[in-house]
Amino acid sequence: MISEKMKSFVEGSSVIRAMFEEGKKLANEYGADKVYDFSLGNPNVPAPVEVNQAIKDIVDSEDSVLIHGYMSNSGYEEVRKAIAENINKRFETNFDETNIVMTVGAAGGLNVILKSILNPGDEVIVFAPYFGEYRSYVGNYDGEIVVVPADLRDFQLNLAEFEKLITVKTKAVIINNPNNPSGTVYSEQTILELSKILNQKQEELGTDIYLISDEPYRELVYDGVEVVYLPKYYDNTIVGYSYSKSLSLPGERIGYLVIPDEATDSEQLKAAANVATRILGFVNAPSLMQRVIAKCLEVEVDVTPYNRNRELLYNSLVEYGYECVKPQGAFYMFVKTPVGENIFVQAAKKYHILVVPGSSFACPGYVRIAYCVSYDTIKNSLPGFQELAKQFGLMIE
Amino acid sequence: MISEKMKSFVEGSSVIRAMFEEGKKLANEYGADKVYDFSLGNPNVPAPVEVNQAIKDIVDSEDSVLIHGYMSNSGYEEVRKAIAENINKRFETNFDETNIVMTVGAAGGLNVILKSILNPGDEVIVFAPYFGEYRSYVGNYDGEIVVVPADLRDFQLNLAEFEKLITVKTKAVIINNPNNPSGTVYSEQTILELSKILNQKQEELGTDIYLISDEPYRELVYDGVEVVYLPKYYDNTIVGYSYSKSLSLPGERIGYLVIPDEATDSEQLKAAANVATRILGFVNAPSLMQRVIAKCLEVEVDVTPYNRNRELLYNSLVEYGYECVKPQGAFYMFVKTPVGENIFVQAAKKYHILVVPGSSFACPGYVRIAYCVSYDTIKNSLPGFQELAKQFGLMIE
Repeated sequence: MISEKMKSFVEGSSVIRAMFEEGKKLANEYGADKVYDFSLGNPNVPAPVEVNQAIKDIVDSEDSVLIHGYMSNSGYEEVRKAIAENINKRFETNFDETNIVMTVGAAGGLNVILKSILNPGDEVIVFAPYFGEYRSYVGNYDGEIVVVPADLRDFQLNLAEFEKLITVKTKAVIINNPNNPSGTVYSEQTILELSKILNQKQEELGTDIYLISDEPYRELVYDGVEVVYLPKYYDNTIVGYSYSKSLSLPGERIGYLVIPDEATDSEQLKAAANVATRILGFVNAPSLMQRVIAKCLEVEVDVTPYNRNRELLYNSLVEYGYECVKPQGAFYMFVKTPVGENIFVQAAKKYHILVVPGSSFACPGYVRIAYCVSYDTIKNSLPGFQELAKQFGLMIE
Repeated sequence: MISEKMKSFVEGSSVIRAMFEEGKKLANEYGADKVYDFSLGNPNVPAPVEVNQAIKDIVDSEDSVLIHGYMSNSGYEEVRKAIAENINKRFETNFDETNIVMTVGAAGGLNVILKSILNPGDEVIVFAPYFGEYRSYVGNYDGEIVVVPADLRDFQLNLAEFEKLITVKTKAVIINNPNNPSGTVYSEQTILELSKILNQKQEELGTDIYLISDEPYRELVYDGVEVVYLPKYYDNTIVGYSYSKSLSLPGERIGYLVIPDEATDSEQLKAAANVATRILGFVNAPSLMQRVIAKCLEVEVDVTPYNRNRELLYNSLVEYGYECVKPQGAFYMFVKTPVGENIFVQAAKKYHILVVPGSSFACPGYVRIAYCVSYDTIKNSLPGFQELAKQFGLMIE
């Protein structure tokens, strides 16, 4: 009795989520401290103290009908204004509240914008390795995913292949910057070339191509690397943002879309995003959390714990003989497997290590390690990674 | 550049929401106390004090990573268990946590279940007058809405017409109990007959038909009327619930679905609802609010303010000559217009009275008055309603 489309979704359901459930089971069996669950991007760093303080201040001082009530489907005007001003200050842009649509996290935002633009059969280009949920989101609106193969050297964008895949059916391109699962931050050079290709193709084909920049990891970068702001490089950019990772609020489902005036049919697009928010059943982003993040826009994100994890894990894995491009952002490491990825994933489970196979990101031969866990989890997992390295011939016993 | 489907949605966008925006404009112009905005079901009664207390208690005493983090897509197990037990106690049912899926309000829940069951072309039957958003929700999954004409005598269900409209393509029936916009509560007799017809048709056609009971207004009833619990009457019932109205939390987007074991393909359906929650971009119902409502399950809803509004408004309108079936639930009154509804709606604006035309609910010749406003708003709007009654010949001047 369930729909045909859902049958395949249920059968091929998210490997990541299945791992998460398996991790909970293992933790019950062996104790949480004996299980090294690197499967899910669920930050272990608590939300900054300012978040809970803002929650209490708002609840104590503001009108209940206002803080828990309906507002415009796109969100509270004053919240959107505060966000626009914050973006303007940081990136020298010129947005106002009409450019911002509050969303139920980045996943909600991506669904809203894809619902707004896709006709059945429209193509959406993604770059491997990519967050597998994009396939579901595009499928929700009967779009077709077109995958650009990975550039395995450094996981920047494979632009030569990209150019070949753009057709009149290309309605949008999604990039994830910093990238899940590789942790790559796209360089300014990469973005300049990407924009150039897109502009050329728009002109050549007489079409418009939206570049959707999914940026939940924007704040999580290391070694002083800069994440460039895409609307400044390409007019048809839509930004999807989320506070899930930067403020450690993934369960609260709060984020926003930026729809610049420079984007084609910008006014229609804003109206469509407003309506899509309503009819997809979001109705609006959670009200209290909208007001909370407006009070936390200046909160500095402390990436120290993630960076500490990154250094220990990267240095250890390289020492054991694993191949890996050092991630510059997010909290994922994408490691080449010495054997077929599924063999490795299964073998790792014997050491209670849970990692996600690269094929979930259209990039087989790798595994993703989400290092948003405690330092002890990293430390205690290392003997297991070392044993696996020996077992598969990366280290001599 | 926006999708074809969205173009029509944007053009024919919600009349109710348009009114809401118009109301805000009028309020800016004339002052909020001079505008009688009856357009939106946004409760003016504050959330019970227990809600804000629970928010503060949780934030002060529970682990930040837990309260703001990811959990299973269907929601926290302990929250679902608490809800199941509360339902069991109230309605003598036998649910557990596996029967409950936490949702982003009732709108989110309806989208999740429709995504889970609908193939393109499947028919979903609704009863006029009905909440117009059902048309969008069904359209999201390429289903077809089939409308049963209203029973204008008392707005119970027109079951003779309903029976004729059931075909092999009927995948689901949605009822809204208590009803928006009429305020009708369906009697046990109505539900018994509805179930009988559904069971007969299932057998006759060899199909399964899900009955989706959308119940955000369950707690808002007057004169001691009882809202029967549908899963006890018909096995293939799915309940959609929301705390938007009962706890005055419409902006927070928190509700749940009940999927009974007795429903056909129940296990598949639960799995599909879990996946649909994820891939539609909800990911999960807002985490803090899940924990808050688990602490507020025993909170009594005070309907006194709404009842006071209902009595004043109903008695006054009847005195002025308007025709109206006295509502037994929700906070809406559905009033017959003495002239074409659009003429009436426009005329009412001159008195700063905003009401929604009945055609938004597939029932022209009526207007909906959402009386979830202050008592003063009701009182001060009455001269306007009286003038309209005189203008259109209901009262002799």
